[in-house]
Amino acid sequence: MHTLTKQPTSFLDAITGPAELKQMSVEDLQKLAGEIRQEIVSSLSRTGGHLASNLGVVEITLALHRVFNTPKDQILWDVGHQAYVHKMLTGRRHKFGTLRQFKGLSGFVTPVESEHDAFVAGHSSTSVSLAVGMAIARDHLKLDHKVIAVIGDGGLTGGMALEAINHLGHIQKNVLIVLNDNEMSISENTGGLALYMKRIKETFFYRDIKEKLDSIEGSLDKVQLTAGIWDMILEVKKQAKERFDTPGIVFEKLGINYSGPIDGHDVSAVIKAFESVKDNSAPQIVHLITCKGKGYQPAEDDSIKYHGVPAFSLEPQLSEKVDASAPKPKAKTYSDIFTQALIDVAKDEPNLVAITPATAEGSGLVKFGKAYPERFFDVAICEQHAVTMAAGMAKAGLKPVVSIYSTFLQRAMDQVIHDVAILNLPVVFGVDRGGLVEDGETHQGVFDIAFLRSVPNFTVLAPKDAAELRDMVFTAVKESKGPVAIRFPRDKAIGATADGDANGSHSSKPRLIDPTKWEILSGEKSNNGQKPPVVLAFGAMVDVSRQALELIESEVKPVLVNARSAKPLDVNLLNELLRDGHDTFITVEEGCLSGGFGAAVLEWMSTAGLEISNTMPRVLPIAIPDQFVEHGARAILLDLNGLSKEKIAQRITKIITKRT
Amino acid sequence: MHTLTKQPTSFLDAITGPAELKQMSVEDLQKLAGEIRQEIVSSLSRTGGHLASNLGVVEITLALHRVFNTPKDQILWDVGHQAYVHKMLTGRRHKFGTLRQFKGLSGFVTPVESEHDAFVAGHSSTSVSLAVGMAIARDHLKLDHKVIAVIGDGGLTGGMALEAINHLGHIQKNVLIVLNDNEMSISENTGGLALYMKRIKETFFYRDIKEKLDSIEGSLDKVQLTAGIWDMILEVKKQAKERFDTPGIVFEKLGINYSGPIDGHDVSAVIKAFESVKDNSAPQIVHLITCKGKGYQPAEDDSIKYHGVPAFSLEPQLSEKVDASAPKPKAKTYSDIFTQALIDVAKDEPNLVAITPATAEGSGLVKFGKAYPERFFDVAICEQHAVTMAAGMAKAGLKPVVSIYSTFLQRAMDQVIHDVAILNLPVVFGVDRGGLVEDGETHQGVFDIAFLRSVPNFTVLAPKDAAELRDMVFTAVKESKGPVAIRFPRDKAIGATADGDANGSHSSKPRLIDPTKWEILSGEKSNNGQKPPVVLAFGAMVDVSRQALELIESEVKPVLVNARSAKPLDVNLLNELLRDGHDTFITVEEGCLSGGFGAAVLEWMSTAGLEISNTMPRVLPIAIPDQFVEHGARAILLDLNGLSKEKIAQRITKIITKRT
Repeated sequence: MHTLTKQPTSFLDAITGPAELKQMSVEDLQKLAGEIRQEIVSSLSRTGGHLASNLGVVEITLALHRVFNTPKDQILWDVGHQAYVHKMLTGRRHKFGTLRQFKGLSGFVTPVESEHDAFVAGHSSTSVSLAVGMAIARDHLKLDHKVIAVIGDGGLTGGMALEAINHLGHIQKNVLIVLNDNEMSISENTGGLALYMKRIKETFFYRDIKEKLDSIEGSLDKVQLTAGIWDMILEVKKQAKERFDTPGIVFEKLGINYSGPIDGHDVSAVIKAFESVKDNSAPQIVHLITCKGKGYQPAEDDSIKYHGVPAFSLEPQLSEKVDASAPKPKAKTYSDIFTQALIDVAKDEPNLVAITPATAEGSGLVKFGKAYPERFFDVAICEQHAVTMAAGMAKAGLKPVVSIYSTFLQRAMDQVIHDVAILNLPVVFGVDRGGLVEDGETHQGVFDIAFLRSVPNFTVLAPKDAAELRDMVFTAVKESKGPVAIRFPRDKAIGATADGDANGSHSSKPRLIDPTKWEILSGEKSNNGQKPPVVLAFGAMVDVSRQALELIESEVKPVLVNARSAKPLDVNLLNELLRDGHDTFITVEEGCLSGGFGAAVLEWMSTAGLEISNTMPRVLPIAIPDQFVEHGARAILLDLNGLSKEKIAQRITKIITKRT
Repeated sequence: MHTLTKQPTSFLDAITGPAELKQMSVEDLQKLAGEIRQEIVSSLSRTGGHLASNLGVVEITLALHRVFNTPKDQILWDVGHQAYVHKMLTGRRHKFGTLRQFKGLSGFVTPVESEHDAFVAGHSSTSVSLAVGMAIARDHLKLDHKVIAVIGDGGLTGGMALEAINHLGHIQKNVLIVLNDNEMSISENTGGLALYMKRIKETFFYRDIKEKLDSIEGSLDKVQLTAGIWDMILEVKKQAKERFDTPGIVFEKLGINYSGPIDGHDVSAVIKAFESVKDNSAPQIVHLITCKGKGYQPAEDDSIKYHGVPAFSLEPQLSEKVDASAPKPKAKTYSDIFTQALIDVAKDEPNLVAITPATAEGSGLVKFGKAYPERFFDVAICEQHAVTMAAGMAKAGLKPVVSIYSTFLQRAMDQVIHDVAILNLPVVFGVDRGGLVEDGETHQGVFDIAFLRSVPNFTVLAPKDAAELRDMVFTAVKESKGPVAIRFPRDKAIGATADGDANGSHSSKPRLIDPTKWEILSGEKSNNGQKPPVVLAFGAMVDVSRQALELIESEVKPVLVNARSAKPLDVNLLNELLRDGHDTFITVEEGCLSGGFGAAVLEWMSTAGLEISNTMPRVLPIAIPDQFVEHGARAILLDLNGLSKEKIAQRITKIITKRT
């Protein structure tokens, strides 16, 4: 490992805002680009963050701020994680040391942070819709600024981006779409559109025919033709070229003017491209080809690895090859355990297939893809398609498993209801990043329990540790007759060790379990006199609750239950607890309070439970309050939302004290 | 009004299943098509149903069943409401008298009804995803049937259909897409794709260039050219034609083979088209041009009106013009009231804009579009785009109102969270068809309360009657600082009369109200001794609960509250009621029990409420149980789910009896 010698950043130091860029020469902008790259690599080596995508848009960002005027002109950054350069140029350079840290700079764009951020972004494919809405508003309010959507080729695979382009082609509003084409979303890009754009770059279209026309021309040279005929031949060539050589014929046919492809790292060419279309009143797409990780060789070589990076040791030099240092074994995450379980169960389940909407890397599923390439489907950023395709697969006899982040599952709620649940199809959902994540408001996986629980036919599970996740995957694939969601957090898996096998722990062998049967983990059901309160903990909160109970200094020892199924509830156990005289239940979940697991217990207590105990048992839900949760380390966010062991202990202590 | 003379249906009578079609001559198929049309018109005049779309697909359906073999071959009908002909040909003709009636034939496709229905459908744009999934399954299982998606040009505007086509182009599975292009979804179609397909039909592409090439050829005739040059010229023409004359160049570029456009009412041409591609192993789209309402003049003339029809008096003859009889005034629906309120408030709110995802007719919003065409945006079947576009509009200073059916809002839940709620933008959602609808499982609007309530920053309202809906719209547009959802059922608006003005009632003037303040409508807060139970009714259930209370013969007179806001709750009133000693609350809502309004009250009672009363108050939610609700008249479905006045009265009586 090396340390980067601090290079001078005299150009960057002189930038206080986008205005300075207007005066700079192209040569100086190029030097500035170099300084920015260095600053990004150096800064992210300390904080972590989205490296490769930001290195890819340095020149595009410089050109945007050179040609357009934010905040008057509105730039909508799709996804928003590639806006670091934009942030540096709009007064936030000095905050980069706090990137993605609690109360620090957000990893995405947000108007809360700067007036130069026209909107919030975190999920993909929203920018064109936002731009269309803002352009309509601009025209309605008789303003005259420019609205610009910067979208990647990955974002363009998302259905809503295509909806928006289709609509824009119809209403012909003045919107500039900057297509940042690096042939890659988080994972490799998928789809006919991706192939098509690849072919654009190979100028597939016109080449043959042009060669043949040239050849005809050559032959005709030898014979006597009237001037009129020559004019006509030239006209044909021109028209053919104009009409069919347009690499962006698909966009043109949808009503969007196209220019490109242009080298997105040639700052002069990009500036020219923007200048030449900036006064257009019709919708325009400028197609720029970029290289993710540009200028930092390790990231150029493996842009997937460097998509989002934790703080990393700095490689010696920009553009300089380095030996990859031997990777240290890392503690297994729940994502790892999930994938390994799938790989293992796939051995004797030949009809198991795995589906991911462009999150093969983050979810670890890329490993499944290597083990079973023919049973692995990365459908690009298409959550809706992923879920309905899985429904079709299940109906036709396969055993589909959809690996999807909780926050992205929000994109496919209708498909979950309409295509999976109505026919009660056995689709298994691995709901990754269920709970709080460091990325902030846009990525919190807090709604899945409430959403999925309200859908008939669903089983909603969450494991307490690695071994249980493995058992749940095994059981769901083997035995489920309807849809099953298994949610787990973005964290190291409890019970899995860095050097352990991928099973989560050495001893864990997958078992068929009844995941709808809850387990009493500790505490005695009966106390002398008054019955102790019962803590019903769901998923990742089981272990935190266990630790919380250890902190409590009280003679009352609450009963701790691993409530591994939020739907159905284990009503037999609840019945039993009520009949034994327990009258206080504390639910703990890493999800929104509204409608979550706690609400499920409340609903049951208010009807069936009431029948048994004749008075309404007390149910005290501990969950994430009704607010969006900012970015920062998961441990901080859990504490902030009352879900650290200390906060849970305080809360339970208060309940016990009040009660006695 | 005339009655149709019963025409002989000898061909149709002979059909017991698709097999018979294989033997018939084209002439006989044409006669059969006529008989089917007559039967559809005649049958729907009694039961109501989707008329125009079914008349449009008679020949396509005949050709599909002639060329392919269901149930082995799998036909995925997008939306599914155009599958009546398919149903007639697959053994369900005799059940048409029960169409869309309780326990009768479904208005959509469903495998529960027939093995010839390969999947359930009700929402648009799912068929290609299902087909891709089923084709993958077929190949994996080494089967050899055909998978066919029948999708309309409207369905093709939906983002998920575009996602699926994009993916299909990439993986090159054997899927046949039958594009039924009638230039119309429920409302007029929107989008660059629609314009593009229009241009396809005008053979815009190759015409000019071909004329010019012909002209050059003509001139060259006069000069001496070698044979080789002529060959070359012909080759150029051929290649140009092959490559650029393809009307489906957009599809071709995405990797889907294209053939068409073909007259979709020429049964012989359609059969030929299917025959010629049925053995292709690559993805194929066949583009058929059809006329909605074909063969029934009133429906051809106004296919929007005849999209879905209630039982209607039969016009005299197929293909014969009739005078439109004077329309009778109909009782205003909540949709009518909502639209009229928007029109009225738009007068002095110049920045109000209205958005609909292809439901302008059903939602009544077409009237707004006529009053304010420049402030009206029908974005086609693009719920995701609609919501995010509205977010962009709100951010940029407009006051967007999204009119959307509850069931279709499911398509845009991520956009609601990520694009509207995080920035707390003042977007008003008119959530139409909130509650039970006659269409069945796919269309029940029962999840919106639970979903929206869990999203931070949202206000979730439901009016008890027409005047209150009007007030809510007025107030939300004028005063809301964040997102507001106003949900109402598909029904006649209470308080609106057939001959009343569109305000809902003669006396109603829109008022600014505090919709988060609940109203006590009847009952006395304090009783002698024990306090009476409090009925907290939400939206359409207020009036049903009022009627229910009238049925109850008890000395205990429950308090009836119009709980018009499910979020936020009126905690002041709840506080007051608890302090007064009320300890039993009954919530009534037309939404799912899980996480709904009742759960909201439970959640509050379990924490804040408990603080006040020291024992957990009893909350008994009356809501739709955890199951999908079949089709049938709303009144029947309400009763079936415990939400008729009789069932509510029974439930409340039981609670009162048990308590005393």
